[in-house]
Amino acid sequence: MGSHNDESSVVMKDARRLGEAIARRGYVLLTGGGPGVMRAVCEGAYKAGGLVIGILPNDKQHPLEKYPNEFVDITIYTGMYDARNVINAKTPQILVALSGGAGTLSEIALSLRSGTPVICLHAPQFSIPGKHDFIAVNTVEEVLQEIDEILARQSKE
Amino acid sequence: MGSHNDESSVVMKDARRLGEAIARRGYVLLTGGGPGVMRAVCEGAYKAGGLVIGILPNDKQHPLEKYPNEFVDITIYTGMYDARNVINAKTPQILVALSGGAGTLSEIALSLRSGTPVICLHAPQFSIPGKHDFIAVNTVEEVLQEIDEILARQSKE
Amino acid sequence: MGSHNDESSVVMKDARRLGEAIARRGYVLLTGGGPGVMRAVCEGAYKAGGLVIGILPNDKQHPLEKYPNEFVDITIYTGMYDARNVINAKTPQILVALSGGAGTLSEIALSLRSGTPVICLHAPQFSIPGKHDFIAVNTVEEVLQEIDEILARQSKE
Amino acid sequence: MGSHNDESSVVMKDARRLGEAIARRGYVLLTGGGPGVMRAVCEGAYKAGGLVIGILPNDKQHPLEKYPNEFVDITIYTGMYDARNVINAKTPQILVALSGGAGTLSEIALSLRSGTPVICLHAPQFSIPGKHDFIAVNTVEEVLQEIDEILARQSKE
Repeated sequence: MGSHNDESSVVMKDARRLGEAIARRGYVLLTGGGPGVMRAVCEGAYKAGGLVIGILPNDKQHPLEKYPNEFVDITIYTGMYDARNVINAKTPQILVALSGGAGTLSEIALSLRSGTPVICLHAPQFSIPGKHDFIAVNTVEEVLQEIDEILARQSKE
Repeated sequence: MGSHNDESSVVMKDARRLGEAIARRGYVLLTGGGPGVMRAVCEGAYKAGGLVIGILPNDKQHPLEKYPNEFVDITIYTGMYDARNVINAKTPQILVALSGGAGTLSEIALSLRSGTPVICLHAPQFSIPGKHDFIAVNTVEEVLQEIDEILARQSKE
Repeated sequence: MGSHNDESSVVMKDARRLGEAIARRGYVLLTGGGPGVMRAVCEGAYKAGGLVIGILPNDKQHPLEKYPNEFVDITIYTGMYDARNVINAKTPQILVALSGGAGTLSEIALSLRSGTPVICLHAPQFSIPGKHDFIAVNTVEEVLQEIDEILARQSKE
Repeated sequence: MGSHNDESSVVMKDARRLGEAIARRGYVLLTGGGPGVMRAVCEGAYKAGGLVIGILPNDKQHPLEKYPNEFVDITIYTGMYDARNVINAKTPQILVALSGGAGTLSEIALSLRSGTPVICLHAPQFSIPGKHDFIAVNTVEEVLQEIDEILARQSKE
């Protein structure tokens, strides 16, 4: 699992190398089937002759750009978007996480909840956004104050 | 959002106080509808006259002990277990996370991905399990070595 | 449950009358929260002072025209599109189906599977599409012949 | 798609023959991965050297008897039970339905909704249960009368 964006050349190279090694060992690769880091690991596995499964967020009636990538052998359409992350977390024997954001973090959390072992390569820095999205406080009063501020901001939008 | 277990008396008391404050402000409370921290916040809101919604993991044909708790007004049955966390993350205007585990962490991650603001009370220590479940490494070689060890362990189970 | 399209004036009037009666009896109305027949029944319940819940296919980041309709009190965002039909089928004590298409038929089937009693008003003619989409045959040979024809047609598209 | 029960010997034999033909043509077989008719078609494809995918309702932590059957090559765990029917309906290029009940009917309806062509072998008699579960009426008054009777019956259970 990993970002739908291209990451640093080190991450992208390691993604391809990981996919290649998975295929050479005769393991099946399952990813979200999209671009970026997902595509790099699929490319490595596909070119090494492995079987590549992509669990897509969209369905055939709602094409999503760059899904599936060109290295996916078996495309599973879900049409349930973020809920498909549950499948990515529950299906594999082992989940390997490369650089990713909140989507990858959700897959890690769901894996841990589901008993799927997780290996994090490059200890990904999950992009927990700044003040307006993730706010840590210590009292109920602070919670209520933050609620007021967020609702006031939302009502202006 | 929070644990289905009872947590420290400070957390449980704050959960009830938070539920009460949400109700007094006229907001609707949405939780996972279960026991523990979820029940405490529902209790606070219910007793203060608020409207309490529970998004249940199970369905009517598969009763789940302590779901819904006795303070839920509106029970939504999903029968989709962990996939229902997506709804908990996407529906509210604001998500408040109290002490919880991997399930709560998945709801935080899915909220951040979905643009729902997250307020963490008591900066919960998410229970990322130990070595055998969450392994951070730095090279593809280490990934492959860990895969070997996990598969060997799984094949013995 | 019913169509997202406006149906005949008899169906639309009965939808509003049904919503009104549900509200007057003090029941909670749950629908898919959209336009057409869904909106008509919500309107009836809302104007009679009832509580109206809408289980939406989309999420806040992906606005869907006419979802929720203006008579929904409690909006539940799922972001899982057709998979949300499962919730519509499992949650109510009783499902009433008015005129609808394949989506409504799926909710009826999922209700029957889930043990939710189903009442069909106006014995809806579910729009099972024509030859190219729904083909009933009697032999494996005919199945294979139809597969060939469909795949040939798909490869031309 | 088809029943998780064993059906008549004609249906079971046709299921195996269909699976075999699918494999011989080089197509990938996707089923719900369970017993009964599902297992028969998987057996036919597996023994003919085909690739067999099973989309399971359960997850690894909640074993479900006879899921996956022994002829599934690639097991996809969803843990979302009936919501996985959406994937079975959206993923294939063509859905073939053999004898089944409400679950299969939901997959047919979701396929039609999703644009997946459906071929029904042996025009399955979908087991729409009797009076207490599926009730067709013509007036709002009859709907309300049926609601009263069902709620009275439920309150006694």
